Amino acid sequence: MINVRTDLAVEAHELSKKEAADVTEIDGVISRVEETGRITITRVDITNENGERALGKARGSYVTIDAPDLKYSLETYEKVCKIISDEIHKMADIDNDTLTLVVGLGNRDITPDALGTSVVSKLLITRHLKESMSNIFGSGIGSVCAIAPGVSGTTGIETADIIKSVISRVSPDLIIAVDALAAADIERISNTIQISDTGIQPGAGVGNNRDGLNEKTTGVKVIAIGVPTVIDASTISKTEIPKEMAPLMVTTKDIDLVIERSAKTVANGINLALHRDMSLRDVESFVG
Amino acid sequence: MINVRTDLAVEAHELSKKEAADVTEIDGVISRVEETGRITITRVDITNENGERALGKARGSYVTIDAPDLKYSLETYEKVCKIISDEIHKMADIDNDTLTLVVGLGNRDITPDALGTSVVSKLLITRHLKESMSNIFGSGIGSVCAIAPGVSGTTGIETADIIKSVISRVSPDLIIAVDALAAADIERISNTIQISDTGIQPGAGVGNNRDGLNEKTTGVKVIAIGVPTVIDASTISKTEIPKEMAPLMVTTKDIDLVIERSAKTVANGINLALHRDMSLRDVESFVG
Amino acid sequence: MINVRTDLAVEAHELSKKEAADVTEIDGVISRVEETGRITITRVDITNENGERALGKARGSYVTIDAPDLKYSLETYEKVCKIISDEIHKMADIDNDTLTLVVGLGNRDITPDALGTSVVSKLLITRHLKESMSNIFGSGIGSVCAIAPGVSGTTGIETADIIKSVISRVSPDLIIAVDALAAADIERISNTIQISDTGIQPGAGVGNNRDGLNEKTTGVKVIAIGVPTVIDASTISKTEIPKEMAPLMVTTKDIDLVIERSAKTVANGINLALHRDMSLRDVESFVG
Amino acid sequence: MINVRTDLAVEAHELSKKEAADVTEIDGVISRVEETGRITITRVDITNENGERALGKARGSYVTIDAPDLKYSLETYEKVCKIISDEIHKMADIDNDTLTLVVGLGNRDITPDALGTSVVSKLLITRHLKESMSNIFGSGIGSVCAIAPGVSGTTGIETADIIKSVISRVSPDLIIAVDALAAADIERISNTIQISDTGIQPGAGVGNNRDGLNEKTTGVKVIAIGVPTVIDASTISKTEIPKEMAPLMVTTKDIDLVIERSAKTVANGINLALHRDMSLRDVESFVG
Repeated sequence: MINVRTDLAVEAHELSKKEAADVTEIDGVISRVEETGRITITRVDITNENGERALGKARGSYVTIDAPDLKYSLETYEKVCKIISDEIHKMADIDNDTLTLVVGLGNRDITPDALGTSVVSKLLITRHLKESMSNIFGSGIGSVCAIAPGVSGTTGIETADIIKSVISRVSPDLIIAVDALAAADIERISNTIQISDTGIQPGAGVGNNRDGLNEKTTGVKVIAIGVPTVIDASTISKTEIPKEMAPLMVTTKDIDLVIERSAKTVANGINLALHRDMSLRDVESFVG
Repeated sequence: MINVRTDLAVEAHELSKKEAADVTEIDGVISRVEETGRITITRVDITNENGERALGKARGSYVTIDAPDLKYSLETYEKVCKIISDEIHKMADIDNDTLTLVVGLGNRDITPDALGTSVVSKLLITRHLKESMSNIFGSGIGSVCAIAPGVSGTTGIETADIIKSVISRVSPDLIIAVDALAAADIERISNTIQISDTGIQPGAGVGNNRDGLNEKTTGVKVIAIGVPTVIDASTISKTEIPKEMAPLMVTTKDIDLVIERSAKTVANGINLALHRDMSLRDVESFVG
Repeated sequence: MINVRTDLAVEAHELSKKEAADVTEIDGVISRVEETGRITITRVDITNENGERALGKARGSYVTIDAPDLKYSLETYEKVCKIISDEIHKMADIDNDTLTLVVGLGNRDITPDALGTSVVSKLLITRHLKESMSNIFGSGIGSVCAIAPGVSGTTGIETADIIKSVISRVSPDLIIAVDALAAADIERISNTIQISDTGIQPGAGVGNNRDGLNEKTTGVKVIAIGVPTVIDASTISKTEIPKEMAPLMVTTKDIDLVIERSAKTVANGINLALHRDMSLRDVESFVG
Repeated sequence: MINVRTDLAVEAHELSKKEAADVTEIDGVISRVEETGRITITRVDITNENGERALGKARGSYVTIDAPDLKYSLETYEKVCKIISDEIHKMADIDNDTLTLVVGLGNRDITPDALGTSVVSKLLITRHLKESMSNIFGSGIGSVCAIAPGVSGTTGIETADIIKSVISRVSPDLIIAVDALAAADIERISNTIQISDTGIQPGAGVGNNRDGLNEKTTGVKVIAIGVPTVIDASTISKTEIPKEMAPLMVTTKDIDLVIERSAKTVANGINLALHRDMSLRDVESFVG
C-alpha cells in the first residue's frame, strides 16, 4: 500500500516497485525512459486494472518531463516547450478546425495553487477572433478558448460543474486541463511536467474525490498537464501530522518566481501545439 | 442626442434635461432625491419607451448612492453597506431558501476594470457548505455562489455565454451582477454606487453590444451593481480623440486603493443583504 | 544544544528546559505567563550571559502573544492591537516629539517573507506632514516615517547598511523593526506575535549572521516585532534535509491571506502606539 | 510660455518651436533625428541658459527613442535594449571596476508609477556576490546594486534624502535613475524611452520641486531613464481641470501589461550596458 501522496505516475511507479521489493515489473504497467541532454522523459503506460490498482491512477499514458535546469537555462526552456507541443500532438489529432478549450484549475490567490490560472493568462486566445475574421488568419492558427473556473471554496460550485456547463455551450473538440500537482520528491518541485491523456479529478489535489473530467464524462479527449509545486508535509514529517494540519504544505522559498517560469513553459508548449504555424518567438511576441 | 458616454442613469437624466433646455420633466422618467447626512440617494425610474430613448437605458429602477467621503469615513462606509443591503431587499424577495449567484464582471488584470472580480473575492460563499450541513447554519444565512467569468478577450468566449451556462447548471433564484462603470463626471469616480433591477449588457462598458443578462433572457431577477472607475477620455478631450485611441481612459492616481475600498463596500452590502442574521462585524470577521 | 531553529524566545526556552530534563529553572532566564480570554502573553527575560547561551538569544525582554483565533475573531484582533500598543509603550517612552522610524524587513516578492513590507504599507505615515503643518495635527499624533529596505539578494547592499544610512539622515528617537520569523511549532504560524527590545539581526532569519541593528549599534532603542510565517523544513523532516534544500520551507496553504491579517494587526498595533489620540477606528479609516 | 506639462525634452522642443512660430531654431538647443527601421532616435542637446529657459529643462543631452511597435515586436524590443545599452555607454565610462547604483523611483502600488520599481526587480544584481567571489566572475560582469526608495507619501522621508544617504554608504561610480514620466502626446505612452545625463528631480513627476539628484549634488554622473506612462488630464481636457482634481490621470487600459514590457526593455538595456560580456539571451536566463 502506497501511503505517500503523489500526483505523479512516475513516482507512484517507483514507490510501487520499491514495495514489491523482489519484483522488477508490475503487470499492467509499462515504463520507458528517454534522455536528451539534461532532460529526461519517462513514459508510464497503465494498461489494465492491476496497473491501476498498483499505481492508484487511471488507465492511460503518463509522460513525465524532468528538466532540472528549467529554472536557469533558456535552452532547456525552449526544448521543453517543443517537447510539450510534440506530446500533445501524439495524444490528440489537431487540425485547422480543432477547437480547444484550455481549463486553468486551482486558486489564483494561493501562490502554489495558481499554476493553472497563470498558464491560462499566457495563452494566445483566438476563438472569438477566428469566428469573425477567419479569412485573415493563416491555416496554422488554431481556435483556442480558455476558462479559469476557480475552486469550490471560493465559488460555492463544483469546479467540474462549471467546466461541464461551459463545455456544453462551447462544444470543444479537445480539452487541455492544467493544474498544480503534489509530488513526493522535493527535487521535482517546478522542474517536472506531467502530461497525460487520462483527464483529471478536479479537487483531487486537495484530497477530495469528485466527478472526473475525462473522455468518458465529457465525450472529448481531455489532456491533463501538471507541474508539482508542493510536497505534502506528511511526506517529510518525522511524526504523523495531525489531520487538522492538512492545509500545511512544503514548498520552496522562491515559489512565486518558479510558478512564473513553469507557467510560461507550459503555456508556450500549449501555444506551439495549437497554433502550428507560429514559432516560439512569434508566440512570445504576443504573450510576453 | 447624448454623445457623452455614461453608464449612470442619473447622469443620463441630467444630460437629457440639459439638452431639452426648456423642459424640466421628461415623459417616462421619474426622479426623486433623498439626502441622509453626506449621502445622497437618487432614484430614477424609466417607465416607458420614451424614457428609454431619452436616457439610452432600459426600463426599470436605477438607484444612485453618492457618498463623497466614502474613501475616508468608516461611518459613511458602514451606512452605504446598509443602504446597498436595503436596496437589494427592495428589489428582490430574499428568504431562507433563496439561492443567489453573484457574477463579478470585468478583467482582473486591468485595475479599473477589476471591481467585479474583487467584489466576488470578498463575498461569504456558502452554497457548497449549506448543501452538506444545512442544519448547522442558522436560518438567516443565505445560499450564495459566485463566478468571475473573465472577459471575451482573454477567454475567447462571450461572457454572457459562460454566465448563462452556469445559470442553467446552478439554477439560482436571484442574480447580482457587479461591474465597473464609466461616468461623465470625474467627481463620481469611486464615490458613487448604482443599483438597478434591469440587468446588464456584458461588454457594454467597453463599447460593444451583446446579448443582455436580464430577467427576460435568464428567467430570474438580475440586479446590477456598479461603481464608476473611469471616465471616457473623449468626455474630457478638447479635440475628438481618434477611434484607435479608444483604449485610453481617465482615472485617478489612487485607483488601486480606491477599487479596494469600493469593492469592500459593495461586497459587504451584498453580504449583509444575503446573510440576513449577520452583522457587518460578523461579515468582516470572515472576509476581512 | 538546541538544533531546532526558532526565532521565538518562548520556544527556545521550552526546548532548553526539555533538554536539561531535571531542571525547571535556567539561571539567567525569567518567564511569566498571563492569560486574558483566549490570548496568552508570555514574558521571557534573558538577564545574563548564561541565559543568552542557553536560549541562543540576546539579553533583553521578549513578549510573546499567542492568539489562536486571531484569523477568525475581530474581537481578538482588536485586543491584540491594543496589547501590541501597550507593550510598545512599556518598552519605549513615546511623547509628542518622538520621531519613530519603522523598518519593514524581508522580500516583498516571497509571500511568507513579506510581512515587514506589508506592515509598512499599512502605517499612518506623518513625518513629512507634521513638519509642514504641525499646528493642524493634535498633540497625540506621532511623527512616523518608514522604509522597506529590501533584502541583500535583490539590492546587492547589506540591509543593515541601508537602514543605518537612513537612520543617520533621519535621526529617529525610536526604531521599530518588523520581520517574518521561523517557529518550531506549526501551530504558531501567524497566530503568534513576538515583541522584544533587543533589536534584530537582519538576515538572521535566513541563516546568515550580519551586523545587528540594536541600541548598541544605532544609539537608539530598537523594538523588534515578528510573526512566525514558516517553520524550517528540517524541523519536521524525518531525515536530514540536505544543505542545498535550504530554501525549502513549510508554511500553510492560506499564507497569502494569513499574512494580510497578521500584517494588519501588527500595523494597527503600531499605529495605536504612535498616534496616541487615535482610536483603532480612526486608524482604520486612514489605512483600511 | 509652455503650459502643457511634459517630462520629454523632445516634446518641450516641439512645443517651444510651435510657440515661436517664425523661428526654426532656438539658441541653446541642438536637435538631430536618426531613423533605423521603425525606430526613431532624437537627440536634443541643451547647451546654454537660453535653451534651459526655452525648454524648461536642465542643460545636458536628452536622447529619445520612439519605437511604436515595441509592444508587439520582439525584434524591436531587442534593438531597443541594444540602443539603451549603447547610449548609456556614450554617457558614462564603464569598466571592470565601475560600481553602479540603479535607483527605481516611484510608487509600486500605483500601476503607472511603478515603472522604476519594476525595472529594479528585473536587474541582475551582483555587488554582494562580486565582493565575496570576484575571482569566479569574468571581467565583463559589472558590479551592480539597486534600491527602490519609495515615495515621500508612503515613507515620510524625502526620496532624495534616502538616495543620498545610500550613496554616501555605497559610494557608487555611476547612478542610473529610472522613473515613469508624463508626456503630452498620447501616442508616446509606453512607446518612448528618454535617456539623459542631467539627473532627475525626484517628485518632479508629480508637480513638486525638490532637491535634484545630479552630478552636482551627488558628485557622480547620474543618468536618468524614463518612459511616459501617463498624460496629464489637463493636457487633453476641454475645460480647465480644477486643482483638486490633480490626481486625475490619463493612461491606457492595458497599462498593467504595458508597464511590464517597458520595464523589461529598460531593465535589459541596463543589464546589457553594465554586464558587458553577457548577451541579451544570457541576461534573460537570469531575470526572466
